[in-house]
Amino acid sequence: MSLPQLEELAGEIRELILTTVAQNGGHLAPSLGTVELTLALYSVFDFSRDRLVWDVGHQAYTHKILTGRRDSFHTLRTLGGITGFPKRSESSFDSFGVGHASTSISAALGLLIAAEIERVPRRVVAVIGDGALTGGEAFEALNHAGQLRKNLLVVLNDNEMSIDKNVGAMSEYLSKLRLKPQYHRAKREFEGFVRNIPFRDISEKILLAANSVHAGLTAAIFPGAIFEALGFTYLGPIDGHDIGNLKDIFSRVGVIDSPVLIHVHTTKGKGYAPAETAPEKFHGVGKFDKDTGQILKRPSPPSYTEIFSRTVIDCAARDKRVVAITAAMPAGTGLKKFAEKFPRRFFDVGIAEEHAITLAAGMAAGGLKPVAAIYSTFVQRAYDQILHDVCLQNLPVLLCLDRAGLVGEDGATHHGAFDLAYLRTIPNMNVLAPCDENELRQMIFAALAQTKPAAIRYPRGSGFGVDIDEEPQEIPWGRAQVVVQNPSADVAILAVGTMVNVCVEAAQILRDKKIFVDVVNARFIKPFDTDAVKKFARSAKLLVTCEEGTLSGGFGSAVAEFLSDEKISTPLLRLGIPDEFIEQGTRAQLLDMCGLTAEKISRRIHQRLNEMIFGFLAVTT
Amino acid sequence: MSLPQLEELAGEIRELILTTVAQNGGHLAPSLGTVELTLALYSVFDFSRDRLVWDVGHQAYTHKILTGRRDSFHTLRTLGGITGFPKRSESSFDSFGVGHASTSISAALGLLIAAEIERVPRRVVAVIGDGALTGGEAFEALNHAGQLRKNLLVVLNDNEMSIDKNVGAMSEYLSKLRLKPQYHRAKREFEGFVRNIPFRDISEKILLAANSVHAGLTAAIFPGAIFEALGFTYLGPIDGHDIGNLKDIFSRVGVIDSPVLIHVHTTKGKGYAPAETAPEKFHGVGKFDKDTGQILKRPSPPSYTEIFSRTVIDCAARDKRVVAITAAMPAGTGLKKFAEKFPRRFFDVGIAEEHAITLAAGMAAGGLKPVAAIYSTFVQRAYDQILHDVCLQNLPVLLCLDRAGLVGEDGATHHGAFDLAYLRTIPNMNVLAPCDENELRQMIFAALAQTKPAAIRYPRGSGFGVDIDEEPQEIPWGRAQVVVQNPSADVAILAVGTMVNVCVEAAQILRDKKIFVDVVNARFIKPFDTDAVKKFARSAKLLVTCEEGTLSGGFGSAVAEFLSDEKISTPLLRLGIPDEFIEQGTRAQLLDMCGLTAEKISRRIHQRLNEMIFGFLAVTT
Repeated sequence: MSLPQLEELAGEIRELILTTVAQNGGHLAPSLGTVELTLALYSVFDFSRDRLVWDVGHQAYTHKILTGRRDSFHTLRTLGGITGFPKRSESSFDSFGVGHASTSISAALGLLIAAEIERVPRRVVAVIGDGALTGGEAFEALNHAGQLRKNLLVVLNDNEMSIDKNVGAMSEYLSKLRLKPQYHRAKREFEGFVRNIPFRDISEKILLAANSVHAGLTAAIFPGAIFEALGFTYLGPIDGHDIGNLKDIFSRVGVIDSPVLIHVHTTKGKGYAPAETAPEKFHGVGKFDKDTGQILKRPSPPSYTEIFSRTVIDCAARDKRVVAITAAMPAGTGLKKFAEKFPRRFFDVGIAEEHAITLAAGMAAGGLKPVAAIYSTFVQRAYDQILHDVCLQNLPVLLCLDRAGLVGEDGATHHGAFDLAYLRTIPNMNVLAPCDENELRQMIFAALAQTKPAAIRYPRGSGFGVDIDEEPQEIPWGRAQVVVQNPSADVAILAVGTMVNVCVEAAQILRDKKIFVDVVNARFIKPFDTDAVKKFARSAKLLVTCEEGTLSGGFGSAVAEFLSDEKISTPLLRLGIPDEFIEQGTRAQLLDMCGLTAEKISRRIHQRLNEMIFGFLAVTT
Repeated sequence: MSLPQLEELAGEIRELILTTVAQNGGHLAPSLGTVELTLALYSVFDFSRDRLVWDVGHQAYTHKILTGRRDSFHTLRTLGGITGFPKRSESSFDSFGVGHASTSISAALGLLIAAEIERVPRRVVAVIGDGALTGGEAFEALNHAGQLRKNLLVVLNDNEMSIDKNVGAMSEYLSKLRLKPQYHRAKREFEGFVRNIPFRDISEKILLAANSVHAGLTAAIFPGAIFEALGFTYLGPIDGHDIGNLKDIFSRVGVIDSPVLIHVHTTKGKGYAPAETAPEKFHGVGKFDKDTGQILKRPSPPSYTEIFSRTVIDCAARDKRVVAITAAMPAGTGLKKFAEKFPRRFFDVGIAEEHAITLAAGMAAGGLKPVAAIYSTFVQRAYDQILHDVCLQNLPVLLCLDRAGLVGEDGATHHGAFDLAYLRTIPNMNVLAPCDENELRQMIFAALAQTKPAAIRYPRGSGFGVDIDEEPQEIPWGRAQVVVQNPSADVAILAVGTMVNVCVEAAQILRDKKIFVDVVNARFIKPFDTDAVKKFARSAKLLVTCEEGTLSGGFGSAVAEFLSDEKISTPLLRLGIPDEFIEQGTRAQLLDMCGLTAEKISRRIHQRLNEMIFGFLAVTT
C-alpha cells in the first residue's frame, strides 16, 4: 500500500472504531492514538510469522480490525463477540493475551526465546505505553532483555497518560526527552544520518556500533540514557502519527542484534476532537453520541465509587492521619476530589500496585491510616505485599477494592472474582462487602476506626439510591445483619455484598411457593460472624451461601470449613461464580450465566429442598 | 566513638556474628559485608528518631547487635529467640519488617511521608542490595520517590551478588560504574570537592545545585545517569568498608531536599576468608566449623532440590522444548547443573518473580515447556501473573515450588504455607504435592507430559532416601494413591505431600489402639481425585485431611466444599497449619506446634472419634 492509501485506511479504521465504540462502549482514546502506529507496524513486519504483543491491549482495536475481525467488529465487548483485548483463542495474530499492565516485554521476550530455540526466524515486537512502563514488571523485563542482547523491539507508545495523566520520575524524564531542544537536535541528526545511508547493512552496523559505545558516553550524545544504561538502543522520540516516518524507522531497525526501544509520541484520542480534549473521559467509555461527544448516561443513583469518594473525604476531614493512595486511577477509583481537597495527603504512584501497598504499609507503620483504592482485579498484583508487608505486621491499611465481582464488558482479565478467596487465606486480614452504597460508607467509617488490616470490596456501577447517612455511622464490627427473618423458616441464606438484595428477592419468590427463607447480610467474609452462622445452621434445614465471587475458596468455602470444624451437619448449598474464567457480556448476562439472579437462586434452593426430601426418602426406603 | 574505636567494635561484632552463625546457622556473608556500613549509619543518624529500613534484612545482624540484642544474639533464629530478619515486634529500631526482597524503598518512603504529615522531623534511610534492586517494586518506588523529591536516602549496598552472582543489565551497569577509571576520577573529584568545603550549609547547597542541573548534563559529568534520570542525586561508588569515608558522606547528605542514592561497594563475607571466597555458600548457611569453614552436614539422603535438579535435566535431555527459569536462585533451586548442561535453555532473571512467570507464559505461548523453579514463599509475588498470564490462557508452564510448607529458622516471612490455598482458587490450575523425592520425580515427568498449567510444591531438606527411578515413570494424572488400606477401617486420612508418611505413622499408632485407619496419598490438590474422596467418605466413619499448609482455604477446605456440594455427610477433620503467621524454630518444633506430628495427629483423630461417640450418645439420650 502506498502512503496515501495507508492514510486513507487510517481514516476508515478511525471511523469504524468511533462508530463501534459510540455504540458498544470501549477503549476509545487509546485505540484512536495507535491507528498509524499499527498500520506502520503491519506495513513493515509480517505478523503471520513475526509476533506482536500489545501491553494492556486497550489500544489494539486497529490490530483487531486488520487481522480478520473487521466484519465482526460491531460485536466488540458483547457476549460471544470480539473481546476488548487481544486474546489467543480469538486470533493467531493475538500472540499473547493481555488486560493487566506491564506484561508485554516479558511475554515478547518469552516468544523470542521460544522462536530461537525452535529455530524459527521471527521478529518480536512489544508495544507498551508510558503508563504501563511504570509497572515494576516492565522494568524487570527491560533489565533481563538488556542483558540477553536479543533482537527484541520495544515500541514505547508515549501519550503522557496511563488512564489519567501519567506520574512518576520516568514520566518527567520522557517529557524532557520530548521537549528539550538539544535532544530533538541530537535525535534528528542521528536519525537523518542513519536514514541517508544508502545501504541497509551499513546503517545497521552503525546502529550496532552506537549501541556498543559506552553507555555513559552515549547518554551525553544521544537521549534515552536510561534505556541505554539497561542495554537497549534508544531511538526517538518520533511522531507516532507520521506513517511514513514510522515505517522508515521500523524497517531500519529490523535486524539489529540487540534490543531496541523506539520512543513514539502519540496523541491519545487522535482524530476525534472530544477525545483529544478529554482523553481520560474517553479512555474507557460507555455509549456516547458520536457527533456531539456527549456521553449517554441514563440517570442513575450515585455509584459505589461516588460514595467511596465522598466518604473518604469525610474521614480525612475528621482525621488528618487518613491518606489516600491510587495506582494511576484517581478518576476511576473516585479519588480525584480527595486529591483536590487534600493534595498533600493524596498519592498517585502510577501503575505500581506492589509499591502502592508497601508504601501504605510504611505509612501505617509511621502512624497514618492509609486507604489504598485499587480495582479488585489489579490488586492481585500485590498479593505478596498484602500478605508480607501489611498482614504479617498487622498494620492498619484499608484496601478499597472497586469493580469487585463481575465487571461486564471488559471480560475475563478484569473480573474481580478472586478477591474473597485469596484475601481470606491471609492471617490477620479482615474482608468486608457492603450490600448497598450506604453500607459501604458505614464500613469505611468502621474500618478506619479499627487498627487492623482490612479490605472492603464493592461492585462496579450504581448503588440502589438508598439514603446516605450525613453523620458517620459504623456497622458493628464482625457482625452479620439479619435482613429477612421468618418465624418458621426452612432455609437461611448467608448473602455477601451485591447478593444480599438479590437473595431478598429470591426469598420473596420462594415465599410465594410457601417456602420460608431467612436472609442474612454476612457483611464480614473474614472473620465472619460465627455466632450468626451457628444460629441459622441450627434453625434452618438448609443453609445457603451466595456471593459474587469464586466458589473455589470463597465465602461459601469458609462456611463449609466452619460447619465441618464445628461438626454441624446442616446441609449447605454454595452459590457463586464457578471455578472457571468468565468471559465478557453485560453484568446482567454474566450474573445470569453464573446463576446469580433471584429467579435462578430461588430455583436452585427449591430444587435442593426437593432433593433433600427425595434423598431422605431414598435413604429410608 | 573515634574511628579506631569503631574499627575495633567492627572486629568484635564480626566475631560475634561468626561465632553465632557457626552455631545456629544464618545469613553470614551478607551480614559480614555490612558491619562497617551499619556502624557508619549509626554514627551519623539517630535511629531512635530517624528510621532505617533494611531490604530483605539478611544483612541486618550488626543493626540487631547495636540495638539491644547483643546479649540475646546467641538465640538467633531459634524458637522464641531473636529473628533472622528485622521485625517490628522485636525492637522499635526495626522500623519495618522484611524478608522478601525489594520492599525497602517503598516502606521508607511511606515512613517519610508519615513523618511529614505528623510533623515529626525525621530522616529515613533504606539500605538495598544490588540484587534486590532488580525487583520491579524497587523500580516502582524509585520512580515515585524521584517525583516526590523528598529527602529520602537510599544506600545501594552493591556486592555484585544477590544470593548467587547478580544478573541483568542493571548489574552490568553498576559494574561499569565500579570499574571505569573515568567514573572513579569524576567521583573522587566531586567527593573531594564536597569534602573540602568547610561549612556544612555550603556543601549542601552545592549538592542541591548539582541535583538541579539537568539530568542529561549531570549524566555526562557524574556517573549514575540512570538514577539521576529517575530524580535521584547519585553519589558513589564508595568503599563500604571505610567507616571514615562512609561517615563523611552520610553526614554531608543529611539534609538535601531531594532523594539521594549513595552507591556503596561492599564485599560479601568480608573479614572471613571462607565466606569471601565462596559467598554464595555462606549466604544462608547451616552450622559450620568456624576455624576451617567446613560446613557441618550430617550425612542425609538427597534433598528434594537435588532430585528436582536431576529430573529436570533428564527431561531437558529428552525434550528440547524444556527450558528452566530461576529468579536469582540457580543454586538454591537446584538449577545450577541445568545451567551448565543447557546454558542456552537456562534463564536467571534476577529477583524478578513477576517477569519470570510472564516470561514463562510467553515461552509456553511460543511452544516451549518452561519450568519455573521458585521458592513457594517468593512465588506469592507472581500471583497475578500465574492467574492472568498462565492460567487464563491455559499455558503449559510448570511451577516447581521448593521450600513449601514450614521452612524452619527463616520464620514467618519465609514459610510456604499459603501456596495450596491461593493456587487452588485459580481456574485451570493443577496443584500437586509429592509424598517423597521419587514421587517428585514422577510428578515432574507427568506434568511435562501434559499441556496444562501445573504447580508441584515440595518441602525444604532431605528426602527419605527412597529408590529413585532410573527411567522416567509418571504418576497417573489426577489420581490419588492408597497407601494404607484396612478391610474395616473407621477412618480415612487424605494426606498431602510431606504429611503422607507422617499419617502412615499415625495410622500405626492408632492401630495399636485397635483403631483402623486408611491412608491415601492425595497427590493432587487441584483438581483432586473426587472418586477416591467419595469412595473413602462412603467407607469411613471419619474423613481426615492433613496438609502442611494453611487450613484457611487449603486442601481440607476443598474437600469440605466437595462433601458439602455432593451432600456427603461423613464428618471431616481438617489438620494443617492454623490461620496465623507461624514464627521461627526448627521444622520439627514448628510441625509439632501445628499438631502435624504422628503422635498429635493420632491423638486428634482418637479424640474426634471419642467425641463422635459422645455426641451420638448426647443426641440419642
